[in-house]
Amino acid sequence: MDGTMKTAVMTGIEKVEIQQRPIPAIKDNEVLVKIENVGICGSDLHYYESGRIGDFVVQTPFVLGHEAGGTVVDVGENVSHLKVGDKVALEPGKTCGECEFCKAGKYNLCQDVVFFATPPVDGVFQEYVAHEAALCFKLPEGMDTVEGALIEPLAVGFHAAIQGGASMGQTAVITGAGCIGLVTLLALKAMGVSKVYVVDIMQKRLDKALELGADAVINAKEVDAVEKIMELTGGRGCDLGIETAGTQITAAQLIRVAKKGSTIVYVGYSASGEITIPMGMALDKELDFKTVFRYRNIYPLAIEAIAQKKVDIKNIITDTFELDHIQDALQSCVKNKDSIVKGLIRVS
Amino acid sequence: MDGTMKTAVMTGIEKVEIQQRPIPAIKDNEVLVKIENVGICGSDLHYYESGRIGDFVVQTPFVLGHEAGGTVVDVGENVSHLKVGDKVALEPGKTCGECEFCKAGKYNLCQDVVFFATPPVDGVFQEYVAHEAALCFKLPEGMDTVEGALIEPLAVGFHAAIQGGASMGQTAVITGAGCIGLVTLLALKAMGVSKVYVVDIMQKRLDKALELGADAVINAKEVDAVEKIMELTGGRGCDLGIETAGTQITAAQLIRVAKKGSTIVYVGYSASGEITIPMGMALDKELDFKTVFRYRNIYPLAIEAIAQKKVDIKNIITDTFELDHIQDALQSCVKNKDSIVKGLIRVS
Amino acid sequence: MDGTMKTAVMTGIEKVEIQQRPIPAIKDNEVLVKIENVGICGSDLHYYESGRIGDFVVQTPFVLGHEAGGTVVDVGENVSHLKVGDKVALEPGKTCGECEFCKAGKYNLCQDVVFFATPPVDGVFQEYVAHEAALCFKLPEGMDTVEGALIEPLAVGFHAAIQGGASMGQTAVITGAGCIGLVTLLALKAMGVSKVYVVDIMQKRLDKALELGADAVINAKEVDAVEKIMELTGGRGCDLGIETAGTQITAAQLIRVAKKGSTIVYVGYSASGEITIPMGMALDKELDFKTVFRYRNIYPLAIEAIAQKKVDIKNIITDTFELDHIQDALQSCVKNKDSIVKGLIRVS
Amino acid sequence: MDGTMKTAVMTGIEKVEIQQRPIPAIKDNEVLVKIENVGICGSDLHYYESGRIGDFVVQTPFVLGHEAGGTVVDVGENVSHLKVGDKVALEPGKTCGECEFCKAGKYNLCQDVVFFATPPVDGVFQEYVAHEAALCFKLPEGMDTVEGALIEPLAVGFHAAIQGGASMGQTAVITGAGCIGLVTLLALKAMGVSKVYVVDIMQKRLDKALELGADAVINAKEVDAVEKIMELTGGRGCDLGIETAGTQITAAQLIRVAKKGSTIVYVGYSASGEITIPMGMALDKELDFKTVFRYRNIYPLAIEAIAQKKVDIKNIITDTFELDHIQDALQSCVKNKDSIVKGLIRVS
Repeated sequence: MDGTMKTAVMTGIEKVEIQQRPIPAIKDNEVLVKIENVGICGSDLHYYESGRIGDFVVQTPFVLGHEAGGTVVDVGENVSHLKVGDKVALEPGKTCGECEFCKAGKYNLCQDVVFFATPPVDGVFQEYVAHEAALCFKLPEGMDTVEGALIEPLAVGFHAAIQGGASMGQTAVITGAGCIGLVTLLALKAMGVSKVYVVDIMQKRLDKALELGADAVINAKEVDAVEKIMELTGGRGCDLGIETAGTQITAAQLIRVAKKGSTIVYVGYSASGEITIPMGMALDKELDFKTVFRYRNIYPLAIEAIAQKKVDIKNIITDTFELDHIQDALQSCVKNKDSIVKGLIRVS
Repeated sequence: MDGTMKTAVMTGIEKVEIQQRPIPAIKDNEVLVKIENVGICGSDLHYYESGRIGDFVVQTPFVLGHEAGGTVVDVGENVSHLKVGDKVALEPGKTCGECEFCKAGKYNLCQDVVFFATPPVDGVFQEYVAHEAALCFKLPEGMDTVEGALIEPLAVGFHAAIQGGASMGQTAVITGAGCIGLVTLLALKAMGVSKVYVVDIMQKRLDKALELGADAVINAKEVDAVEKIMELTGGRGCDLGIETAGTQITAAQLIRVAKKGSTIVYVGYSASGEITIPMGMALDKELDFKTVFRYRNIYPLAIEAIAQKKVDIKNIITDTFELDHIQDALQSCVKNKDSIVKGLIRVS
Repeated sequence: MDGTMKTAVMTGIEKVEIQQRPIPAIKDNEVLVKIENVGICGSDLHYYESGRIGDFVVQTPFVLGHEAGGTVVDVGENVSHLKVGDKVALEPGKTCGECEFCKAGKYNLCQDVVFFATPPVDGVFQEYVAHEAALCFKLPEGMDTVEGALIEPLAVGFHAAIQGGASMGQTAVITGAGCIGLVTLLALKAMGVSKVYVVDIMQKRLDKALELGADAVINAKEVDAVEKIMELTGGRGCDLGIETAGTQITAAQLIRVAKKGSTIVYVGYSASGEITIPMGMALDKELDFKTVFRYRNIYPLAIEAIAQKKVDIKNIITDTFELDHIQDALQSCVKNKDSIVKGLIRVS
Repeated sequence: MDGTMKTAVMTGIEKVEIQQRPIPAIKDNEVLVKIENVGICGSDLHYYESGRIGDFVVQTPFVLGHEAGGTVVDVGENVSHLKVGDKVALEPGKTCGECEFCKAGKYNLCQDVVFFATPPVDGVFQEYVAHEAALCFKLPEGMDTVEGALIEPLAVGFHAAIQGGASMGQTAVITGAGCIGLVTLLALKAMGVSKVYVVDIMQKRLDKALELGADAVINAKEVDAVEKIMELTGGRGCDLGIETAGTQITAAQLIRVAKKGSTIVYVGYSASGEITIPMGMALDKELDFKTVFRYRNIYPLAIEAIAQKKVDIKNIITDTFELDHIQDALQSCVKNKDSIVKGLIRVS
């Protein structure tokens, strides 16, 4: 498709402007997707604010955004499972398919991954993208591209839940009620976990967690979270803990409320990169710890969960913005972290 | 059996004396075992020196020792799989059989376990013991009760190896070359792990590790352990790490040399009970962490490994003592931790 | 508790009469349960009709019935987790706790199991039973002993589902819509399986399956079941198949509709004891086959599923009878296998 | 590389002739391999004799052979892990990398696989082949291309062993002592299985099994195999059974000698495509059945096993032929199935 498209280009720290760029050409195994909705992720805000995450440093000009849903408008020669007009969710990471991790099904660990909005790869705060057809998942009747865009964060929640062995009848606790804590809550409930307790220190987030199905929420500023959870579980503790807050305190809380032989999943990064663990207690309880890096093989599952009404993902959105006002949108998200749980950019 | 027996009774901190006690009577589901050899475990030395481990506090008089091999000399009415004259290894923990952990096969997590030499339960530095027949494992032809006694520490090594998913062809690293590090080395090699590298700072222990089959040993006082391991693995890192040293430094080393998606098993207790982990790196690599509390369902496997000559367990013993001189033996072990890798008490 | 109780005693083939027997005394680790409801299982009917199942031969007098719910009326000295007045579901099999299967958590494979209504062990078509407290699971507020009685068959359904690796988002097919097929359907839906298709040749059973939540039912007398399922799945086949009918035809159907790499669980016994499998096709698809013998560690899970309203187990009952009329009840069940999907004996 | 190469072309049933074909050109991600040794597989013989296996029908001209080892003589532009002169083992199946099976690590189930010598894809009984570099595994110092060629059948053995959960200390039985039975034997022993018993009816093959490390062999023509195995295991039966013979009798034998809760792996195809299983017994024992289709992610492991001297793979070769005499070689293998356990074509 000829012509140009609006692209939100990061030109410096806290500077994003709409520029015109050529609509990309597609290869034989790609489709051209007209992007309709893109979620704003914490990592987008991090790059926007500080220009880097760990070793990944933004070189401007750069395009943010990696949680995208849209509609197929052109189809490469070798593509058979998609056609023009299909609504799709875009999995943002293109992997090599040949390394030991790809071959073993752990493609999220591929060294050569090319991932939207991870420097130096541009993201998708723009009107069109050419993307591998195999990474574009068709949405079933009745799903829209807002839901499509939110498959990406939901996939992290499902991956955390699956890493933790979430299953019917369990009692779980999530520390941290930010976007990842909330999608994990949705994933756990969809997988049949009986009781999910959510711990945070911001009441607004806890209210959202309650609205999304938490069986109880605990404001750790007001009560002793460990005591409260032990009380809620009749002294038995939890079958599964998922840490999304990235703090020392929450990491230790989960170990204290864990049942013997249970599993704790670490998802959240701490500011320092380190976490001190009461390992003696973990050994006495013979706990398992799992960690999460993005996700793998989750999109079909997550789409099915929404299609089956097991997950109401739209409900996590608190604020919607237009692409034309993306600078204001990002600025607003950065300044109101407490109240904006999840923002969405409406592209077209 | 009537009569009395020699019993090594701890009467105070660093005080053990031989006393005469009645030979115990057996119940219908028990056998009477004449104890021949008992290993000296680090926990025995800890109780001997300090009178406590964590919440477990010795009330004297108390009997230490839980790594025992001996010969059946009497058999309870309901016992069918053992007869007088059988040589046996004694699994030291009697569990309830009814709790959720026992029912699920994780009997090492049973809350109601009664375990030799764990206060207030007496151990087996004595001539006879009445023990559940189901916990007495018959040794095959050609195995003796020195090997029988050492099944207990070896079981910890196998449990760590199994928790870590040890399998043929892997490259593994063990930090810490004390008794548990060494039995883990033996277990890993028996399970077909290709390369096992052992890290410590005491050369004597590293020499022992080499003698027991380590593919390379690294004295972390002399070289950078992380660099050395990356060099040994051609930059690829390890499939499995097992931490037995209980230190901050070794815990972090294992994460640095771990391959993406690999597993680290924590076995060693740190002095403070806490360990600080570079969790950001662990998340980026999506590592799994497992922990170890004693063992479960390992005795038959460990006995078979020795019977098949896959493990030469006797080789870990560096010093043998007589029961009559147990005070000197324990004192000697406490004072020469660097050179006495593993002591054994010969009871009869 | 002194006195006598009504007991339904099988005195010959198709002969059951109410007799008075002493109320049993309890041991220290037992509770006395006043039985309120007992489900009628296919195995009860089999013994009633033919006096045997495989190698198990009834010696009269004999008591049938093993799916029981009731209320605790007396408590042994060592029992702490139950008190008089608690409503309970009774797990019918008492295992040794010491064999390799018990120790490894697979207690359903214990050779020395003592199981209600499996010759020569009497069952529970009677007013009271003394049973191990550890096998009596307290029902939460709001659950009654009809539900308690039906935990037993539901446990088979959950065990089949778990053996098959049932998980959120899957498409499954069940062949056979008898009691076990139906409880498996309930289990699969509770575990989040997206689509469950049920195949049978009796329309009444299929109607029941639809009522219980099947996404589609297939009367294999009227349509080609394989074709229909492939159509329903858009040609992709099923992630999980569960065979409860015990026939040649259904066993082969499941292999034909199985996706590559998927799992089929065999639950149903065929009349001949043999099943011919298109193994070449199974190899080409690299299918896994699992089998089911009773269940293990399922009661807490199944109770939770009912408490959480994930399963409406009462809905499987089609006919209720009084203990006094048990002869008529069993006769009626035997004669109307097509219409009586599940019968229940109300004891008190 | 310009020029022509000798190619063994199948021109009809039981007709193979050496023709000259152009040496293939390589793509950027490929290497050109000078083939030195190619194993003769049962499937090669099947195509040679009958022109088909199941739905796969040979259209002549066709090239057989898929078990190849050789030396890299040219390297594509994008290839970094191989260089001219490297000895390699060639994994014969090129998969799509994008389907759900590839993405999940089960690439052996990829529908779009392109596999040497599986119609219509030519094999490698020829002097050179251009092959994806990612499928060419470098052999370490000290390994030669005879071993390289035999990685392919050995991979089937390891995949069967891994599917069956082979582990240290187990007792296993293999039915069928043809090539696949023997490589499975080698794999089981390398993985630490304690006892491997091999059942066949051809004494020559059983002698080979003994030579390769079987702990006992059973000629089922002379003794009752089930009785003998129960005797060898002291009545306890086997932890693992692997069926490579593809017969009714052996399939049933494995179920009879299986321990409760154990696993049987089906590898062998029966002539009819069907196998009748005593499923009632399998249910009572709650057995697992696994099947095997080729292998996945095994080459590095199998190469390591040979490098570590855990497997002496060369020892399975009974007959070596030259490429120039391939017609005689194949004819000889077809006519002497009893005595030629494994043939090898020496290409250069």
